[in-house]
Amino acid sequence: MSHTDTGRRTSNPAGTDRSEADTRSARKRRVIMEAATTAFLRSGYLGTSMDEIAALAAVSKRTVYNHFTDKERLFTDIILTTSDQVVGELVETATLALEETDDAERDLRELARTLITAICQPEVLRLRRLVIGETDRFPELGRTYWERGFERGLATLAGKLRQLADRGLLRLEDPLLAAQQFAGMILWVPVNRVMFCGEDAAFPPAEIDRYASAGARAFLTAYGPP
Amino acid sequence: MSHTDTGRRTSNPAGTDRSEADTRSARKRRVIMEAATTAFLRSGYLGTSMDEIAALAAVSKRTVYNHFTDKERLFTDIILTTSDQVVGELVETATLALEETDDAERDLRELARTLITAICQPEVLRLRRLVIGETDRFPELGRTYWERGFERGLATLAGKLRQLADRGLLRLEDPLLAAQQFAGMILWVPVNRVMFCGEDAAFPPAEIDRYASAGARAFLTAYGPP
Repeated sequence: MSHTDTGRRTSNPAGTDRSEADTRSARKRRVIMEAATTAFLRSGYLGTSMDEIAALAAVSKRTVYNHFTDKERLFTDIILTTSDQVVGELVETATLALEETDDAERDLRELARTLITAICQPEVLRLRRLVIGETDRFPELGRTYWERGFERGLATLAGKLRQLADRGLLRLEDPLLAAQQFAGMILWVPVNRVMFCGEDAAFPPAEIDRYASAGARAFLTAYGPP
Repeated sequence: MSHTDTGRRTSNPAGTDRSEADTRSARKRRVIMEAATTAFLRSGYLGTSMDEIAALAAVSKRTVYNHFTDKERLFTDIILTTSDQVVGELVETATLALEETDDAERDLRELARTLITAICQPEVLRLRRLVIGETDRFPELGRTYWERGFERGLATLAGKLRQLADRGLLRLEDPLLAAQQFAGMILWVPVNRVMFCGEDAAFPPAEIDRYASAGARAFLTAYGPP
């Protein structure tokens, strides 16, 4: 782990050689995480061994242990990296358009569509199912996933809703509560459907559009200006 | 299984003796299901054996097999009985007050409070987690749980919302969509919170009240009469 950290020290006198080693190390780390994600999603936490992960990543078992102390740490890192990605690269990007919107309904609908589509993606779903299934074994992991995924995402959305209220485009007393209601309105059915019926039951794009439109409309009727 | 079925044949010439045997058989079936529920919730599907269930129910393994063909059938029966109970005894009862309501906000708030409380109960949650975790192994089970639990519950609520619209208390084009939005608004955060953070993270009653009130208010602003 320290390899990637030191990679950011530009004052390192070893110069290029050290940087190349760091890049190689970071690349290896990424390859191991990808292999481990594949293995965990396929066989679950208990069903996956460090040997398999090493074989799948085409590295030695020692290399795996150089990067990740143990299987638990590797599992935790994967879950948290993904939840950070979902929030960092998804919610924050997807809510950007709200900042300067001149058509709140259009941009809320677009946001809804993006969120439903992303959260129902097979890989995200399988990870979600894995975390839920492992909550008893790793209570801390589920809680961190909740805080860094759900709570952070909802806080980001709440911030944008507050800006819309400041601009007179919404009337809100509690932006966080409104953000939670918006997320629930658009996600409850599509997400639970795939959680229980499997990925093949995911809504087709037209159905996602219908949900997104109806959610944005109901939300604006409830919280829009008179 | 045939024991309980024949118990309903009142024309049975064996009379009382047969009925007593049927009652005993139905009681045993219930005891086995309760023991199996405890075992499955504690150790999951794979971690539970028919031997353990028999021991926990204090019956012979043969008796277990007389009532349930195999472990899969027993597991499926438990999940479906519970989903039927949640919908039959919960959603249908909880929405009764809406039929003749003279205060839609109060009764929607009360309904929201009942639904959040019931669905966040430890036993319901653990079952939900179990079904989600076993969806790959039993795709048909997850789908049936969805249809008999979610879809039936939402259809029941949609029927009541349509009645409210007929009475001029709501303005709705699509009662099912409105029911899905109502459920999502009130359930998304409390249910996901306990799914990821565990039962200890369940909202206290005051927080449930706040969610229920806010959900009923937003829903009525969106769909109530002008």
